Amino acid sequence: MNRQWKLIARPTGMVKRSDFEFTEAQVPTPGPGEVLVKTQLLSLDPAMRGWMNEGRSYVPPVGLGEVMRAGGLGRVEKSNDPSLLPGDVVTGMLGLQEWASVKATNLDKVDLHLAPAPKWLSALGLTGLTAYFGLLEIGQPTSGNTVVISGAAGAVGEVVGQIAKIKQCRAVGIAGGAEKCAYVRELGFDAAIDYKSQNVRAALREACPQGIDVYFDNVGGEILDEALAQLARGARVVICGAISQYNSTEGFRGPKNYMSLLVNRARMQGFVVFDFAARYREAATAMAGWLKEGRLKTREDVVRGLDTFPETLLKLYRGENFGKLILEVA
Amino acid sequence: MNRQWKLIARPTGMVKRSDFEFTEAQVPTPGPGEVLVKTQLLSLDPAMRGWMNEGRSYVPPVGLGEVMRAGGLGRVEKSNDPSLLPGDVVTGMLGLQEWASVKATNLDKVDLHLAPAPKWLSALGLTGLTAYFGLLEIGQPTSGNTVVISGAAGAVGEVVGQIAKIKQCRAVGIAGGAEKCAYVRELGFDAAIDYKSQNVRAALREACPQGIDVYFDNVGGEILDEALAQLARGARVVICGAISQYNSTEGFRGPKNYMSLLVNRARMQGFVVFDFAARYREAATAMAGWLKEGRLKTREDVVRGLDTFPETLLKLYRGENFGKLILEVA
Repeated sequence: MNRQWKLIARPTGMVKRSDFEFTEAQVPTPGPGEVLVKTQLLSLDPAMRGWMNEGRSYVPPVGLGEVMRAGGLGRVEKSNDPSLLPGDVVTGMLGLQEWASVKATNLDKVDLHLAPAPKWLSALGLTGLTAYFGLLEIGQPTSGNTVVISGAAGAVGEVVGQIAKIKQCRAVGIAGGAEKCAYVRELGFDAAIDYKSQNVRAALREACPQGIDVYFDNVGGEILDEALAQLARGARVVICGAISQYNSTEGFRGPKNYMSLLVNRARMQGFVVFDFAARYREAATAMAGWLKEGRLKTREDVVRGLDTFPETLLKLYRGENFGKLILEVA
Repeated sequence: MNRQWKLIARPTGMVKRSDFEFTEAQVPTPGPGEVLVKTQLLSLDPAMRGWMNEGRSYVPPVGLGEVMRAGGLGRVEKSNDPSLLPGDVVTGMLGLQEWASVKATNLDKVDLHLAPAPKWLSALGLTGLTAYFGLLEIGQPTSGNTVVISGAAGAVGEVVGQIAKIKQCRAVGIAGGAEKCAYVRELGFDAAIDYKSQNVRAALREACPQGIDVYFDNVGGEILDEALAQLARGARVVICGAISQYNSTEGFRGPKNYMSLLVNRARMQGFVVFDFAARYREAATAMAGWLKEGRLKTREDVVRGLDTFPETLLKLYRGENFGKLILEVA
């Protein structure tokens, strides 16, 4: 049988177990060009909350009664496509289930000799690509720039700060709690700001005496406003996420300080990593090189048990994860 | 004597007469390199409200007890600089007063044979330059784009829409009231939306079936949010002003729909016209040409009497002006 999580209600506020149904279906039979994959690891991402909402976004919402969308890594068990063989390890949109039948063209084969399985969902997966293209293409940092990253101990944030350092920038991370801040410093960030215990405005001023050249935002809310207030002339604000807002029952909070974009001749720009698909190989090669050289380190927070999904997902929104949050299915 | 308006209090909410003092001083004696100018016309601009506030901005705030800052046009009466002669007509920062002593290098000589005096504060002044560089450099419209302009019957907005038409774009104006909307249509905009009587969301959807490629924002607040909700893929949002917010006693309202920048891979960017000073001549030449050809029309709303300043300024914030609001001093 195929255990799976289906979305059965559009959540209001924080996601809860009753928004989902944990159910069983037949293991699917792959059709022509399809591959049967046994899920091993599932990527839990802040963006999942948005996929549960109705309305137009960069991907369609998950339909009620459908298996919850999720990226993952698994092993090919049966293949109706010559490009993949049983035993191959692949990543792709597997969904929150034990078995997935997916078109071979929508899967990427990975090499576990190059990096262990969890890295293929973090640094070497969409998470790493998001950090790479978001920072380099949208943020366009130049050597000597001050780059500030919110959610700095999270899956994307930790990578952004390290790429900023590789590109000769000053990297300042904002994270919640002393332990996360210690981790961010350990990764080589020049400074870490604990938004839970520090005055973010004063701390940003101290850490960025010349202002912020690139602000990479994963959180939205008050921290986005504080960063806007400290922009340098010509700054670039990269909108990658807004995790502080996804579960709000009062709607999104807009950045009150957005007129700082005028005062500082700055821009705020969003992006979706899929648009860079043609350049994934370039990025993955760079990331793999930095990983191998020890210049890029990532942490994966692996929680075991498909049945724990709703509670494990909440770790993200409560800020309890370190690095990439992964659900281990096997 | 030199009658002048001094700022004596930092306004809270709407500007009021008691925030200023209407007083008299000696007519100044121009120093070396300076010119004595008799003010004829003063430019009343939404941005003035920001200049009255304390705090860092793109220009320093007007100090308490200082003559209120204002751009204007006047006649040279005495000159200590060979570049200007008595009788020359000039524009520059004259301040809210009858006489100003200004460095000749900070004044621009204008030719009233080319265009009547009020045009030198609207289409051919900073207002026109703001529209020109904001739309073309920050908005970067291309032929066939849909350009939406808020404050479309205002001094900057009316020019932006007409330049958009000259550049083969579809121009949609948002303005308050039937009379303003009729004016906007008369200027050649493809559509006008009356935010006072229409549902802006529905009207934008109808007027922009392919979404908004360039949104030129003069107003902020709810209208900014409605425009963000209708962005096309890759849209550019030009932040020129936020007149709906300047007098708020509850602080600025941030754009709640800013995550539309992510969904639509769009950017929101601010600018200050002064940064384009090296290209003013290029823009002024283009604008003068369009004026002469009849492809660009502007309206100037001239109110007589320096003593009416506080009340006349309020016309802007109440949306009572048509086109450029000018105070006639003489």
